[in-house]
Amino acid sequence: MMYNFNAGPSILPQQVIIQASEAVLNFNNTGLSLLEIGHRTPAFEQVMHTAQNLVKELMGLHSDYEVLFLHGGATTQFMQVPFNLLPSQGVAAYTDTGVWAHKAIQEAQHYGKVHVVSSSREHGYTYIPKNITIPSQASYIHITSNNTIYGTQWHSSEAYTQAGVPIVADMSSDIMSRVLDYNAYGLIYAGAQKNMGAAGVNVVIINKNILGKANRHIPTILDYKEHIDNGSMLNTPPVMAVYIAMLTLQWIKDSGGIAAMEVLNNQKAALLYNTIDSSTMYTGTVTAVEDRSKMNVCFTLPNKDLEAKFIATCTAANIVGIKGYRTVGGCRVSLYNALPLSSVQYLVGIMSQFELDNKM
Amino acid sequence: MMYNFNAGPSILPQQVIIQASEAVLNFNNTGLSLLEIGHRTPAFEQVMHTAQNLVKELMGLHSDYEVLFLHGGATTQFMQVPFNLLPSQGVAAYTDTGVWAHKAIQEAQHYGKVHVVSSSREHGYTYIPKNITIPSQASYIHITSNNTIYGTQWHSSEAYTQAGVPIVADMSSDIMSRVLDYNAYGLIYAGAQKNMGAAGVNVVIINKNILGKANRHIPTILDYKEHIDNGSMLNTPPVMAVYIAMLTLQWIKDSGGIAAMEVLNNQKAALLYNTIDSSTMYTGTVTAVEDRSKMNVCFTLPNKDLEAKFIATCTAANIVGIKGYRTVGGCRVSLYNALPLSSVQYLVGIMSQFELDNKM
Repeated sequence: MMYNFNAGPSILPQQVIIQASEAVLNFNNTGLSLLEIGHRTPAFEQVMHTAQNLVKELMGLHSDYEVLFLHGGATTQFMQVPFNLLPSQGVAAYTDTGVWAHKAIQEAQHYGKVHVVSSSREHGYTYIPKNITIPSQASYIHITSNNTIYGTQWHSSEAYTQAGVPIVADMSSDIMSRVLDYNAYGLIYAGAQKNMGAAGVNVVIINKNILGKANRHIPTILDYKEHIDNGSMLNTPPVMAVYIAMLTLQWIKDSGGIAAMEVLNNQKAALLYNTIDSSTMYTGTVTAVEDRSKMNVCFTLPNKDLEAKFIATCTAANIVGIKGYRTVGGCRVSLYNALPLSSVQYLVGIMSQFELDNKM
Repeated sequence: MMYNFNAGPSILPQQVIIQASEAVLNFNNTGLSLLEIGHRTPAFEQVMHTAQNLVKELMGLHSDYEVLFLHGGATTQFMQVPFNLLPSQGVAAYTDTGVWAHKAIQEAQHYGKVHVVSSSREHGYTYIPKNITIPSQASYIHITSNNTIYGTQWHSSEAYTQAGVPIVADMSSDIMSRVLDYNAYGLIYAGAQKNMGAAGVNVVIINKNILGKANRHIPTILDYKEHIDNGSMLNTPPVMAVYIAMLTLQWIKDSGGIAAMEVLNNQKAALLYNTIDSSTMYTGTVTAVEDRSKMNVCFTLPNKDLEAKFIATCTAANIVGIKGYRTVGGCRVSLYNALPLSSVQYLVGIMSQFELDNKM
């Protein structure tokens, strides 16, 4: 038994793994592997439709929304979003809340004017800068709803909904993890490999009304409208990754939907943060407690030696994926949808024992 | 037992399917699924390096070459190639030999001047137009080495090597299928899902010396140089698809390499074309016999009723994937690397029986 706290690609429900493994051998009793079926067969078209409909159903999206499953990860969207939405004479508002948010800004700058409306960059991204003024003529406001590396998360949408401009959200690390008014967003994108599947596919959720205003040539493969018109089958889709997303979405539905995910995610985060807050060994790195992420919990130990010893202790206890991001250090524990509460209980047990054994 | 002649995604070696299925349950005895491992773990980094090195080894590439595994399919490369290689004041030469070649031309036209040096479009793409004059100042000459939909293939490189400009080849449907002087090419790209893996990853093979001349801003995620500098790990790669490509490449190597694939592919194509040529029921659609593809064999029957009856007969005999491309009709049989000779023997047996039973 492994305890997988990977930041992404990350833990999947055990039944998804078993179903995926079986489909690789024999997909839907076709006698063929999922890996060798045609993507235009009725069997795969049904997979694609089911996945799209599950996203709509789980998020409660109204009929203006289209759901795409595209090649690439969120990094592709950093460029694809402004390509489609930002006219060269236009302005886009961006919030700078972490490494990925910053990369999104850097890519967007080549398509139009980018107005960074708030940033915690100078403070090591240790909080969410919520005091923002969005230009009313902005084509959109871009937020990164959860910052995987620094462990911060937008817990209120008030700051970015007030201007009434389309909201574009990179939800790569918290999509499907909590109840939100998803219909308030103009475009949501997410690499699937954290909360809703495996690496190799991007989900893009678009309110169609925001398209058609960029007024530039868009390469066919980057054009959201082309993908909508072709039902995410403009070219051969990443068949396996779409199938695994479908299975994971089905698992979320069968588990009680996003509301049930949120209850579980709250429990896991509360237990882990409580352990950190009541300890002298572990220190949370997010200075603004109200901005702490329920997906990625970042903390440090008093020194590098103890940190290394703690990670070694965890490794020996079959705990995987708790090292902090390579440029940041420390520890990071990811609590995505598929992680059971029992894994967090196990981890905090190890943490408490480690603290006791290493009292200074 | 199924006989899978799909045009792509397509048949994979049985041992690759079994290994992939096992890795989904437990990757390399880590106790974790391949779907939930971190891409920056040593175990996955080794997968990526092994896959890259197998491409170099199998193709005999010299040290100027880099091998990338990128998100997306060949359609992404239609845009990514000119973005990286065609200056806005430059000229690129393209050959128009099929639907995908034509799409590549349409995408490239937005980056610089595209000079179509030969085309069989007006003749239904029934042959390879080899009489071409390449402008010596061209940034590159683009060919589609095999035309999946129409069943034609370049069997000689003479026509496009003479000008001495970099050769860019879309080898999506015949990569690794025959011995070529791969070092003669500046850039080769291919979606993996025909001859070397499953859908969801692109292999791009680049002679580094042709980069750095486009003189425009390239979005980070589209910049070959960025991917080279980051070892195909600029962002989270499509982990599963890279792993399956690695397994398939290993299978090619263990089977005797590309030379052995070519021998087998020649045998399969000879048997099928001979059956067609000696029949009155089946008519090959490629008018120039010397341009017939060894990967995709296209033929028709005397009328739609017989065609439908033939396909139904095949379906009843567990034969999959022989319907022609949706815009073209007729029959198409794909003979990629992983297809055993015995499958073709089985098919021609059915074809001969059908001809006998339906003598007119």
